[in-house]
Amino acid sequence: MDRLTRQLQFLEEIDKLKGVERRTLLMDGGRVENSAEHSWHIAVMVPLLAEYAPAPAIDLARVTRMLLVHDLVEIDAGDTYCYDEDARQGQADREAVAARRVFGLLPADQAAAHLALWEEFESRETPEARFAVALDRLQPLIHNFRTEGRQWLRHGVRSDQVRRRMRPLREGAPRLWAYTEALIDESVARGYLAA
Amino acid sequence: MDRLTRQLQFLEEIDKLKGVERRTLLMDGGRVENSAEHSWHIAVMVPLLAEYAPAPAIDLARVTRMLLVHDLVEIDAGDTYCYDEDARQGQADREAVAARRVFGLLPADQAAAHLALWEEFESRETPEARFAVALDRLQPLIHNFRTEGRQWLRHGVRSDQVRRRMRPLREGAPRLWAYTEALIDESVARGYLAA
Repeated sequence: MDRLTRQLQFLEEIDKLKGVERRTLLMDGGRVENSAEHSWHIAVMVPLLAEYAPAPAIDLARVTRMLLVHDLVEIDAGDTYCYDEDARQGQADREAVAARRVFGLLPADQAAAHLALWEEFESRETPEARFAVALDRLQPLIHNFRTEGRQWLRHGVRSDQVRRRMRPLREGAPRLWAYTEALIDESVARGYLAA
Repeated sequence: MDRLTRQLQFLEEIDKLKGVERRTLLMDGGRVENSAEHSWHIAVMVPLLAEYAPAPAIDLARVTRMLLVHDLVEIDAGDTYCYDEDARQGQADREAVAARRVFGLLPADQAAAHLALWEEFESRETPEARFAVALDRLQPLIHNFRTEGRQWLRHGVRSDQVRRRMRPLREGAPRLWAYTEALIDESVARGYLAA
């Protein structure tokens, strides 16, 4: 199979991400968003919130590439709700298998490059990955706040769980941490989130 | 209003792009895609198809940033079907007004930067913009082919219209032009597209 054929096959395969539903509601509360929309939203956030990155010389282009492909494993593994501890059992293994299958559709050099980006995101060791993870966590927090915590309340999520989930922002976007904490406190105060 | 507040207000506003429906069907034909999903898909295509860019030293990060925000004007102006000549009347004016309103939500420096990206895309003068436009055109062509031209047939689109619509690929991704032409020819041969 030639190189272009493999590249186009990948492009067709990833269309399925548009059908992977998350628990986050759109800002208007009308429906849940899907992982393709989520990936787009957080990719737009990269240049917009770059001034809050954890290091000045960060490679923003790599952050963006990471965010654009970090959820592709969900095509096989599904979206795992971050507050569902049972569902999270085995998530890492499921996603690692999915990563090899989905990125393995590409020509070998591009498969390796994409797999490396995905692993960098998952490992959260580089400043780029930390910033990427921070944006990936911040976006649903804002959505939950704007939709009056409807999904938090529906799924019985408590503030300590949200605080733990948001902790990567402390290192990944330190200047946004105070804002994040204030948003969680305000959510509790307004009854959007159980204390 | 402080800087972070403006940035977050913009992030909330652009969530509306997830509700702007295009005419293109998803690959599985189940529903039309929206402009946020489309923007994500073509942004993923940038590194993937970079070897077909019109110049070797192209700034791929700028291509990606352009594609991620190029459709935000549709929040106000709606998606204009590219084969609907009546709807296209006044499109440029509607979108220019929208660009000033939507990007104008941002702090002044970021508003200017985003507006400049949007104008670069629309002007199609730089190699980056030409490559971006090429990817923006190629993606729906593949979707239409994979869904057996259902939307082309529904809207009475003819092959000469599609050929004209795809012409930016000749300059924007010259090594993909032969593939593009072959896909149009094959669409006609299979009855997906009126000659």
